[in-house]
Amino acid sequence: MEILHTAAALHAYTENCRRAGQRLALVPTMGALHAGHLQLVEAAAEACDVVIVSIFVNPTQFNNPDDFRLYPRLPEADAALLGPAGCTVLFLPSVEEMYPQPSVLHFDFGPLERVMEGAHRPGHFNGVATVVSKLFHMCRPHQAYFGQKDWQQVAVVQQLVQDLSFDLELVSFPTVREPDGLAMSSRNRRLSAEARAVAPRLYEALEQAAAAVRSGLAPAQVQQQAAAYIAAEPAFTLEYFEVADAQTLQPVATREPGRAVVLCLAAHLGGVRLIDNVVVR
Amino acid sequence: MEILHTAAALHAYTENCRRAGQRLALVPTMGALHAGHLQLVEAAAEACDVVIVSIFVNPTQFNNPDDFRLYPRLPEADAALLGPAGCTVLFLPSVEEMYPQPSVLHFDFGPLERVMEGAHRPGHFNGVATVVSKLFHMCRPHQAYFGQKDWQQVAVVQQLVQDLSFDLELVSFPTVREPDGLAMSSRNRRLSAEARAVAPRLYEALEQAAAAVRSGLAPAQVQQQAAAYIAAEPAFTLEYFEVADAQTLQPVATREPGRAVVLCLAAHLGGVRLIDNVVVR
Repeated sequence: MEILHTAAALHAYTENCRRAGQRLALVPTMGALHAGHLQLVEAAAEACDVVIVSIFVNPTQFNNPDDFRLYPRLPEADAALLGPAGCTVLFLPSVEEMYPQPSVLHFDFGPLERVMEGAHRPGHFNGVATVVSKLFHMCRPHQAYFGQKDWQQVAVVQQLVQDLSFDLELVSFPTVREPDGLAMSSRNRRLSAEARAVAPRLYEALEQAAAAVRSGLAPAQVQQQAAAYIAAEPAFTLEYFEVADAQTLQPVATREPGRAVVLCLAAHLGGVRLIDNVVVR
Repeated sequence: MEILHTAAALHAYTENCRRAGQRLALVPTMGALHAGHLQLVEAAAEACDVVIVSIFVNPTQFNNPDDFRLYPRLPEADAALLGPAGCTVLFLPSVEEMYPQPSVLHFDFGPLERVMEGAHRPGHFNGVATVVSKLFHMCRPHQAYFGQKDWQQVAVVQQLVQDLSFDLELVSFPTVREPDGLAMSSRNRRLSAEARAVAPRLYEALEQAAAAVRSGLAPAQVQQQAAAYIAAEPAFTLEYFEVADAQTLQPVATREPGRAVVLCLAAHLGGVRLIDNVVVR
C-alpha cells in the first residue's frame, strides 16, 4: 500500500492508472476506521483494480469547533487496517494541501439540505460537496463508495454527481452495526462506558418506529412515540427524529404506497452527537 | 472533424484520448462563431492534440427568455468554420442531453457575483458554473479556453477550478475587436445597421475612461464621464459602468498602485444587450 500526502502526487498517480486502463475506486473517509469503512474498502477491492482511501477530517464540514477538535484521529492504526482490506493507496493530505486558499464558492442543495443534518449543521453539506468534488477530481474514480449511515450525505453527493455530470458511479452500502444494534461510527470511540451501554436505544427506537410505520401508524404519531422512547433514558438529548421520503428527504405527513420512507435521527449522548437511520420500503 | 451529440459518446471519446496520452483542449461556446472564437480554437490547436469545441446555448445561464430565444443559432455555418481552425471534435448536445433532469444544486460565488453581470442577471453564473462543470467532466480537458470579453465569467470559472480542484489549466484570451473597435460578439448579428453604426461608442467610452484612470482621475468621476459620453447617443441605455479591481471585481473608490483595474460596462442598444471591458494595469 502506498501512502500519498499531496494532491500533485495523487493526480499523477491516478492519471497513470487511467492511462494504464485500470479501474479506480475511491473510499473517502475521515479516518478512525471501523468495520463499516473496511467493508466499503473490501467491496471496492472486489470491483476495481485500484482502491484509494482518503483520510481527511474536513474542517469545512464541521459547524461545531469542538466536534472538529475532538474527532478521533488515528492514522497509524488506520493504515494498519487498510492494507489487508485491499487498499492500494492511502491519501493522507493536510488541510493546507486540500485548501491552499479558502473557498469562495458555496453549494446550495435546496430542499435536500433544508432538513435534518443540513438544517442542524449549517454549512455542513457545502463542506461535504466541496471536499468530495476535490477528491473526485484528484482521484478520477470510476466508483466512489459511501455508507448509508449518512443517508442524507449519500443523497446530496448523488445530486452533486448528477447535476455536475461527474463521470463516476456512486456505490452506497448499508450501515454496519455492533451486535447490540448500535450503528458503527468513528464517534462511538468517544462514548463513556455508561453512554455506550445505553446507546443501542437509538436503534431500538428506529426499529420500533419502522414497525409502527409498516403497521400503518401516521408519521406524526411514529415520531412522537420514538421521541418518548428515547427521552425515557435521560442521558439522551434528541435533536431530531424525522419520517421522511427516502429520495427527497422531505418529511411525510402520510405514507404513500410504493414510496420508501427513511426514519432518521440525531441525538446527543454524553457530549457526543450520534446519527442513525432505517429505511422502510 | 467529428461531430458528437451525446454525453456518452463524448465521455467515451475523451476517455480514449486520455488513455492514448493525448493532450485535450476544450473551447466552450454558444455558437454563432466569430473571429474571437476561432482565435481560441487556433490557440488550442497549437497547444493540444485534440480540440473539442462545444456549441450549446445554455438555457440555465439566461435570465431573460427573449435573450435566450433570440440568441443566434447557426450550427452549419459554425461547423464549416471550425474544421479549418483546428477543431477535432464538435460537441453539439441538445438541452435534454445536458440536463436529463433539472438541476437542484445551486452555486454561489459570493462577492464575485454580487456585482456587474451577476447583479444584473440573477442566476447567470450559477448556470455558467453548472454547464462548465458538466463540460469539464465530459471533455476531461488539460486546458480550457475562454475569452476575456466575459471578464467576470473568466474570474468565476477560475474560482470554480480553484475551489473544486479541477485538474486543468484555464487559458484566457484578449478580446478580439472589429476594425472600428466594437468587441466581437455573437449578439452583434442582431444589431440593425443604425445600431451597428453607433455601437463602437462603447469601446470609445472604455478607452477614454482607461486614459482618465491612467491620468489619475478618481473612479467616481471616470464613471460619470463615461456614462455621460454613452448617454450622448440616445440609442443606448447604459445598464452599468464599473471601475473594479481586476481580480476581486469589487468597485474601487481610489486606485491602488500596483493593482490592475478593469472597466466594465453593459448597455442595451436596439433591443440587444452588449458588454465590453478594458483592463488598466
